[in-house]
Amino acid sequence: MTPVPEPIGPVDATKVPRFAGPSTFARLPSIDAVHDFDVAVLGAPFDGGTSYRPGARFGPLAVRTASRHLRTAYHPELDVTPFQRVQVVDAGDVPVNPFVIEDAISQIEAHAGDLVRDSSRLVTVGGDHTVALPLLRAARRGHGPVALVHFDAHLDTWDTYFGASLTHGTVFRRAHEEGLLVADHSMHIGIRGPLYDRSDLIDDARFGFEVLRASDLDRLGSEEVSARIRARVGDCPVYLSVDIDVLDPAFAPGTGTPEMGGFTSRELLGLLRRLGGLPIVGSDVVEVSPSYDTSEITALAAATVVYDVISLMARELGT
Amino acid sequence: MTPVPEPIGPVDATKVPRFAGPSTFARLPSIDAVHDFDVAVLGAPFDGGTSYRPGARFGPLAVRTASRHLRTAYHPELDVTPFQRVQVVDAGDVPVNPFVIEDAISQIEAHAGDLVRDSSRLVTVGGDHTVALPLLRAARRGHGPVALVHFDAHLDTWDTYFGASLTHGTVFRRAHEEGLLVADHSMHIGIRGPLYDRSDLIDDARFGFEVLRASDLDRLGSEEVSARIRARVGDCPVYLSVDIDVLDPAFAPGTGTPEMGGFTSRELLGLLRRLGGLPIVGSDVVEVSPSYDTSEITALAAATVVYDVISLMARELGT
Amino acid sequence: MTPVPEPIGPVDATKVPRFAGPSTFARLPSIDAVHDFDVAVLGAPFDGGTSYRPGARFGPLAVRTASRHLRTAYHPELDVTPFQRVQVVDAGDVPVNPFVIEDAISQIEAHAGDLVRDSSRLVTVGGDHTVALPLLRAARRGHGPVALVHFDAHLDTWDTYFGASLTHGTVFRRAHEEGLLVADHSMHIGIRGPLYDRSDLIDDARFGFEVLRASDLDRLGSEEVSARIRARVGDCPVYLSVDIDVLDPAFAPGTGTPEMGGFTSRELLGLLRRLGGLPIVGSDVVEVSPSYDTSEITALAAATVVYDVISLMARELGT
Amino acid sequence: MTPVPEPIGPVDATKVPRFAGPSTFARLPSIDAVHDFDVAVLGAPFDGGTSYRPGARFGPLAVRTASRHLRTAYHPELDVTPFQRVQVVDAGDVPVNPFVIEDAISQIEAHAGDLVRDSSRLVTVGGDHTVALPLLRAARRGHGPVALVHFDAHLDTWDTYFGASLTHGTVFRRAHEEGLLVADHSMHIGIRGPLYDRSDLIDDARFGFEVLRASDLDRLGSEEVSARIRARVGDCPVYLSVDIDVLDPAFAPGTGTPEMGGFTSRELLGLLRRLGGLPIVGSDVVEVSPSYDTSEITALAAATVVYDVISLMARELGT
Amino acid sequence: MTPVPEPIGPVDATKVPRFAGPSTFARLPSIDAVHDFDVAVLGAPFDGGTSYRPGARFGPLAVRTASRHLRTAYHPELDVTPFQRVQVVDAGDVPVNPFVIEDAISQIEAHAGDLVRDSSRLVTVGGDHTVALPLLRAARRGHGPVALVHFDAHLDTWDTYFGASLTHGTVFRRAHEEGLLVADHSMHIGIRGPLYDRSDLIDDARFGFEVLRASDLDRLGSEEVSARIRARVGDCPVYLSVDIDVLDPAFAPGTGTPEMGGFTSRELLGLLRRLGGLPIVGSDVVEVSPSYDTSEITALAAATVVYDVISLMARELGT
Amino acid sequence: MTPVPEPIGPVDATKVPRFAGPSTFARLPSIDAVHDFDVAVLGAPFDGGTSYRPGARFGPLAVRTASRHLRTAYHPELDVTPFQRVQVVDAGDVPVNPFVIEDAISQIEAHAGDLVRDSSRLVTVGGDHTVALPLLRAARRGHGPVALVHFDAHLDTWDTYFGASLTHGTVFRRAHEEGLLVADHSMHIGIRGPLYDRSDLIDDARFGFEVLRASDLDRLGSEEVSARIRARVGDCPVYLSVDIDVLDPAFAPGTGTPEMGGFTSRELLGLLRRLGGLPIVGSDVVEVSPSYDTSEITALAAATVVYDVISLMARELGT
Repeated sequence: MTPVPEPIGPVDATKVPRFAGPSTFARLPSIDAVHDFDVAVLGAPFDGGTSYRPGARFGPLAVRTASRHLRTAYHPELDVTPFQRVQVVDAGDVPVNPFVIEDAISQIEAHAGDLVRDSSRLVTVGGDHTVALPLLRAARRGHGPVALVHFDAHLDTWDTYFGASLTHGTVFRRAHEEGLLVADHSMHIGIRGPLYDRSDLIDDARFGFEVLRASDLDRLGSEEVSARIRARVGDCPVYLSVDIDVLDPAFAPGTGTPEMGGFTSRELLGLLRRLGGLPIVGSDVVEVSPSYDTSEITALAAATVVYDVISLMARELGT
Repeated sequence: MTPVPEPIGPVDATKVPRFAGPSTFARLPSIDAVHDFDVAVLGAPFDGGTSYRPGARFGPLAVRTASRHLRTAYHPELDVTPFQRVQVVDAGDVPVNPFVIEDAISQIEAHAGDLVRDSSRLVTVGGDHTVALPLLRAARRGHGPVALVHFDAHLDTWDTYFGASLTHGTVFRRAHEEGLLVADHSMHIGIRGPLYDRSDLIDDARFGFEVLRASDLDRLGSEEVSARIRARVGDCPVYLSVDIDVLDPAFAPGTGTPEMGGFTSRELLGLLRRLGGLPIVGSDVVEVSPSYDTSEITALAAATVVYDVISLMARELGT
Repeated sequence: MTPVPEPIGPVDATKVPRFAGPSTFARLPSIDAVHDFDVAVLGAPFDGGTSYRPGARFGPLAVRTASRHLRTAYHPELDVTPFQRVQVVDAGDVPVNPFVIEDAISQIEAHAGDLVRDSSRLVTVGGDHTVALPLLRAARRGHGPVALVHFDAHLDTWDTYFGASLTHGTVFRRAHEEGLLVADHSMHIGIRGPLYDRSDLIDDARFGFEVLRASDLDRLGSEEVSARIRARVGDCPVYLSVDIDVLDPAFAPGTGTPEMGGFTSRELLGLLRRLGGLPIVGSDVVEVSPSYDTSEITALAAATVVYDVISLMARELGT
Repeated sequence: MTPVPEPIGPVDATKVPRFAGPSTFARLPSIDAVHDFDVAVLGAPFDGGTSYRPGARFGPLAVRTASRHLRTAYHPELDVTPFQRVQVVDAGDVPVNPFVIEDAISQIEAHAGDLVRDSSRLVTVGGDHTVALPLLRAARRGHGPVALVHFDAHLDTWDTYFGASLTHGTVFRRAHEEGLLVADHSMHIGIRGPLYDRSDLIDDARFGFEVLRASDLDRLGSEEVSARIRARVGDCPVYLSVDIDVLDPAFAPGTGTPEMGGFTSRELLGLLRRLGGLPIVGSDVVEVSPSYDTSEITALAAATVVYDVISLMARELGT
Repeated sequence: MTPVPEPIGPVDATKVPRFAGPSTFARLPSIDAVHDFDVAVLGAPFDGGTSYRPGARFGPLAVRTASRHLRTAYHPELDVTPFQRVQVVDAGDVPVNPFVIEDAISQIEAHAGDLVRDSSRLVTVGGDHTVALPLLRAARRGHGPVALVHFDAHLDTWDTYFGASLTHGTVFRRAHEEGLLVADHSMHIGIRGPLYDRSDLIDDARFGFEVLRASDLDRLGSEEVSARIRARVGDCPVYLSVDIDVLDPAFAPGTGTPEMGGFTSRELLGLLRRLGGLPIVGSDVVEVSPSYDTSEITALAAATVVYDVISLMARELGT
Repeated sequence: MTPVPEPIGPVDATKVPRFAGPSTFARLPSIDAVHDFDVAVLGAPFDGGTSYRPGARFGPLAVRTASRHLRTAYHPELDVTPFQRVQVVDAGDVPVNPFVIEDAISQIEAHAGDLVRDSSRLVTVGGDHTVALPLLRAARRGHGPVALVHFDAHLDTWDTYFGASLTHGTVFRRAHEEGLLVADHSMHIGIRGPLYDRSDLIDDARFGFEVLRASDLDRLGSEEVSARIRARVGDCPVYLSVDIDVLDPAFAPGTGTPEMGGFTSRELLGLLRRLGGLPIVGSDVVEVSPSYDTSEITALAAATVVYDVISLMARELGT
């Protein structure tokens, strides 16, 4: 694809201090301020699918605020100047119905579907993990079925809770059932903690997921884990879903279902940065619940992940 | 009515420190541990009807924990030893579906309906204010329509949000429509803050509510405000609903929709303690959202209100 | 003056939840989105003049975020629908140099001066109190010298700190020296706490200020205090400066120099709402330091004050 | 008495910023740095007598830190320049055994006894209220039995907890039994909340205490309450004991046994400042538990009370 | 041993949301609700032996609350369904005297002694580390002397503090002196930080402890460290004592004597999970001080450790 | 050099509990209390050079308070009893002008210059990183140009912000320009995160710095990284500057410009402890901003680093 000739970048931090100026992600232009875009950051402030601590509806707000921390011109590990290379915008928030899960899912699907086109990509900030389902539907519409690369403490392939089939713990079973995923090319990374039932893992495997547990990282190392991810997804278009609780609670206290024994932030970044070259067609970063956060560390981690995903996309998209 | 002879009271704080022992409200016996009861404290941990900051699902847990602060044998202002006078129990939590408002409302209505009988009263800890609707339905079933005495920063008589008719901001319009309230005997106390529309007040009056704004307390004083409440409810059975946000955010930061300019905690207690003699047949204390609380001050305020409501009921019920 | 026909108001909260949508004050239109405006909310994120706890540079961000709490259509105490009556906008932040006080003051003076015209008013969110000096300069340019109505725990008429003459504790002495204030028509309200020297009060009086201490409110009551304010300012154009530390630390912990014994939030609102009819030509709300705040209570108080000041202006401005 | 000529005052805040310099109370000289003193601030960092939330052992540290907030030269309400009028020092902390209550009490008694002489006064910062007993013993040694003016939410005249007779809830019964108090001249102010037993009040009266409940302040007003205190103590030497939980939890969250419905900080200061002229021979400010505090508001309140008590003493002591 | 047929497990999380229902550990049955048990979780809410930050008396309450986070049916790393395999119960709290260390120790020893029998095991939640002494006494009574596997930042083999011999820093010297430990089979893991004296290590070795410092984990790796633990304990019955401060303060801020440079939570779990097969006859998890915690991360870590220890026991106990 | 015969050490923690006693670093003697010293801990409470979150002016206060946690007699990893080996003192704070950067720098330079002599060393607690410039000037005066070993997330070699050349992000470019550093012997360790511009790294190299990124530690390991530091500095006198944000935000949330992906605290200590034998002639530990800290974990990390640096110095200095 051809990026627009001269992308409009963030507000210049040498002219407007980072604590001032617009509240868009990384102080990027709003979607209304540009003619076209390559990558859009979208907020999906919905948390009605949360089983324990709610509050992820404030995730987009918190992640945008924390993104003020970022210096953004040049990403040295990925050797890319993402906002010069492609046009990145903030697409605002999906106006969701906070009371009815089905409505919210439809709204996100419609809104994201309007933004996703062949040449554009979405990085969506949740919201709870429920939002991944409509985003995967929108991704399929734009790019066909995808290989899911899923960083999370939890499988999120349970069937129902209290009879509800659309919740933050059931989305990837639904995605599998709806044919949104390329069979046998998806993977969970960072899984840990006890399960509701021994059969959870059996079901999950049956749906075509491979599991790399958090403790596997100790055993295999970052190089090997990233190699396995690459091998798993093959040439499929990739949808990258990052539940911030893949980090240990020390690194991401601000989330709804924290789980002891997770990744350090350097480990997560080390894995993400080894995914260069994959055709990431869509992504979400979810489950930031700011009222449980501490001095923005969770939101800053999420904002950094968003920036890294944009940088990965920019390397592939830019010419 | 005849209270059970020799009520079982809380765990003795001179034998078991208040930071130890059972986690029931005020360390009272569980409902399973007694033959019969006069007053039951019930948890309704549902917050799916919240329009802004969620988290009131953790309200019952937080209020029970904060109730450990209470010395409880003798209430000097009301001159009653409530737990000696009547049998008070902790009835546990309604097991609610966190994902579907209609289901949760049905569950609360059924559960509360089983507990409310002619000779027993419920004091329910929310949860968001949505829980008041099924509780009023249960109250009507047990006691007929009621006069609502409603302490809150907000009217909660809006029509719908995003098309949803059952939310924490619409319950009392629904209660009016369903005939749960005695016409023209209900009252809001503590209302303040801007409104969605000038017509909000007109609608509210049309539904038969009288409004005493927070600033009216300055003008009228506690005696006159309580006199007006008494005059308003007349001889009707009273349902007392306390949204903790009737307190100023300094006194109750842990709530979902705080509003500047509210009551101090002494003002609220002063009003409640002047309601002695009213036939309070049911009550709720709602909207405690612990993740926004500070050193338990909101939860402690709510626990104290629960204790005071029990004490008011005990004075009327006991022989 | 003639307001623009059909003002553009905030985002509709029944269509976009308050936790979503733009991060302007009260989700009002940005200054770029309208042709003209009557009242502009401006951020002055500077805290280099702070003598104790810094952080007010994050005040505009926090107050805008907290303004999402506000329902805004109708102000019942002032009986006005401010955003229908006049065009209110968010004018963004002054891009200030955080390192050099003199530069920041010049930047604010220039930026505000461009916005203040005969028919328009500014409500500026600080920042520390240093920002009041350039704002008073801009006010004089637009409206001539003003009567200062100053809510604060502190006089802010000291001479210098460490040889620095432009700090948050010296601005009103400077304003007096520069002739920005109408002689003998200004007033401090809410003063309390010990002083650096007994002569502080003598100097202050010499500069033409009248002082109403916090404890005077107990003695005089709100009606009398507001009557004295009105008497003091007479017919002068009024500049209203609200240091959030006029509130007690319980109501405004998020500030740099808290002082025990301040106003409750209802007392402050009660005083402000009795100032209807005064020709308020400019205003600031300063010293919100979010890292010391608790669950947004300070920022919410400041946002409510901003909304009330806008409402006061709208009553006078609108036709 | 004759104060030492030319007292050494605090570090000059115009030369050393308040966030720098020594960590003594109000940056006053250490006791080792002066020849003699009139008033000493002493820390008693013991919390082994706490029945619920511990942590008051960090009270002296927190109150000294919060005292950096204070401008201190001139107290306008009391019209006194305390540190010019008398020599005030920081006497450091009593080195207490944190594990054995009896040992700690002996250590405090001995340490305080060495400091109290006819012409000197102690203002002690707790620690939990247990420390009042050895301080009253020391006071009697220096000044004879005293009239106790006791600001607190709780009576602290219980008999024993778990068989322990020396705890923060039993000290004033012990003081009565030991003859440390002048009979029938002592008073509790600010009492509220439920009691362990109806007989608590009867016992308390039998020990010669008068009780003014928190709600009495609404009824009587500050003038009348202070008049009753004065009438009660008559001409006796006064020991002033301030449990910070006399304040409402909104004003003093950082304490071990908070109780809803307390004084505002302005009410407490208003009462204290009406006690001018009483012969205060000793004082304590106790129960600040910093790990429950919020942005230092409790510690700042306590530091301000200490400053006010010093100012009251200075008015009487200075010539 | 023979577990009771068909153990009663936790409340079903698909029927009662995890934020509702009983406040027992993992919502397990109370000890009163079953005929017999294999493993009991006991609270020992005592913190009178704390040398620095107190508050561990609230540890059992906090750990039980945090245990609501746990999904619990199946432990994939240990491949066990603990609550199906053996009967686990919550045995409530020891009612301790908070004021007198010796009394509290006696109470814990008696209470635990009643629960420990040949076929049953205790996992005790502290409380400060003082509680380990009576628990070791009870363990010896049931199982004879034990090999201590002790995860901690500190040795806890000092002699006395301020003359007190029974504190949280001296318990294992006392245990050695009382013959509670098998000679030369005990080990400290995770030790770090400066010491009171060089001789501390010499004494410790003399008492028969081996030390693995936190930094040894970098050098040796988890496999080797766990091998050394196994070699050290040999065939002895094992008592596993986990002071939560073995974790770095980032992972466990909520503790009384944090020490920089500790284990990550994944490291600790990795070590524990390599101890499968050891005959763990008793265990404690101590020093959780909730008022210093952040969003429950410390309490959640402790709850997870408790769950893992139960799972280790269940593997050995179940048939 | 010859240390004074018998150094005066900290207050004895077996006689005065660590929560009591003086507030000097590690409760060491004040500089006024000894005749001479080898190492002085100095506070430089200045944060006027901060580009994002301010508050480091409270760093010295917080680090001294957190140093109460430290047991200090014997450092087992470095096998040294630092306070017995050399005389260490607390030199108090530089009284800085908080409003004017140039003044503050002059004050720090003068004050430090008076303390640094051939035989003495300073360990300075910031304050923001701006303070390193005057400290390097003082170091050159005492020891000649130095090799800088710089632990930080950021290079701090930018040119100007808003035209200001003296800020916390520009100090090491200034130090290079002023010839304070030995050419080509300095090194940054822990660098990470995006940059303002790709040229930042080129400039930095041109000034003679070598960069070891945070991710290099994964690749190289602690031994190799420390070997490279040693190789880089050669025989030069070393100035060790530790910006606490070299730690990951999980370990150091209390800082102004946190950056995801940093060192764990054990990694940092592991590197520092491998620097034994280097001639460290001066050091700073900066950018602790307490209002963003959590339960003192950042301040405790900084205090531990200060203690380790003192221990490194003591090994070299003592005889």
